[in-house]
Amino acid sequence: MWFQETLSIRTRGRGTYALSEQVAATVRRSGVRTGLCHLFVQHTSASLMLCENADPTVRRDLEVFMARTVPDGDPAFQHTSEGPDDMPAHVRTVLTHSSLSIPVQEGRCALGTWQGIYLWEHRQAPHRRHVSVTVNGE
Amino acid sequence: MWFQETLSIRTRGRGTYALSEQVAATVRRSGVRTGLCHLFVQHTSASLMLCENADPTVRRDLEVFMARTVPDGDPAFQHTSEGPDDMPAHVRTVLTHSSLSIPVQEGRCALGTWQGIYLWEHRQAPHRRHVSVTVNGE
Amino acid sequence: MWFQETLSIRTRGRGTYALSEQVAATVRRSGVRTGLCHLFVQHTSASLMLCENADPTVRRDLEVFMARTVPDGDPAFQHTSEGPDDMPAHVRTVLTHSSLSIPVQEGRCALGTWQGIYLWEHRQAPHRRHVSVTVNGE
Repeated sequence: MWFQETLSIRTRGRGTYALSEQVAATVRRSGVRTGLCHLFVQHTSASLMLCENADPTVRRDLEVFMARTVPDGDPAFQHTSEGPDDMPAHVRTVLTHSSLSIPVQEGRCALGTWQGIYLWEHRQAPHRRHVSVTVNGE
Repeated sequence: MWFQETLSIRTRGRGTYALSEQVAATVRRSGVRTGLCHLFVQHTSASLMLCENADPTVRRDLEVFMARTVPDGDPAFQHTSEGPDDMPAHVRTVLTHSSLSIPVQEGRCALGTWQGIYLWEHRQAPHRRHVSVTVNGE
Repeated sequence: MWFQETLSIRTRGRGTYALSEQVAATVRRSGVRTGLCHLFVQHTSASLMLCENADPTVRRDLEVFMARTVPDGDPAFQHTSEGPDDMPAHVRTVLTHSSLSIPVQEGRCALGTWQGIYLWEHRQAPHRRHVSVTVNGE
């Protein structure tokens, strides 16, 4: 059994956007009880992340880490046509994840208690992002 | 054909724990000859890694790299409720992998000669970790 | 429906090698219309990457980032038996991706407009690399 749909997320610029509820709804619609749920972000300047879902300072600290490790306006970068956050957004995407698979058990994503699914927008400006969701199972 | 089970790994604190044999046994139990084996760690402070399996200094050096790139006790982090290794464990998890898929060919994981599967515990204290394994194929 | 084959890529040393066309051909050969295409690199010193496919300076800048973050000849590393790029190649592999899944829609990989699939060779010397491709769907 295969079920595919595309989530559309309007971001307000750099930051993390919770996807767990939308993904859970897709899995319910699929009717799959046992299988896998696959997410794929169709962009090279936004990514997917599984992250602690209780304390928002975790995601704030992740931004702090990335701002230090891959700072905007890095003079070593040549690909700057879309601004100082252009190339850092590509690096952050490569360091995190474009695709992610989660087991489906008893009709639900088998996430751990503290795991949340997030889209991570790496550009400073708002964007519309597409995440393709594929649910496969029986 | 779908086969799911959960591995339980008792860690002794930060470090890497070989999973290749347990995963191989799960694939054998599944009866799948051609397909995929998917691993998923249900935590946000431990991760999965494919790594050189012959020389243990590779994994020692990976710890050295992480200790320098994401040091414990980083004063920039606010999420410190569980101690100086709390937030670094989340960052290390995001920089590595929560899910991993390996092709199954002729009833076995088609790993390269030097590839081993490891659970990477990022917390200093021992933990019990759960890895969900899904084998799908024919 | 399952379809597996192995791509063989002869690299000329460190750098990125476009795989999108070879993967597209494999998906066509599979006959799958709706499903997933899974890639797996059977090495621990080369990895997979989805990256902006229009401007080659993006991939040049990614090399610059990695050369600074994981420099060759790092004196902290003990695993140097194959030279100064040996351990850095393992670290770069762990920081990027050994496996990658892409949705298949209407018989094609549903990549975003700017997404290209690349093999990233992390060793300085030329190598022959194997990427296992599994297409599953209906």
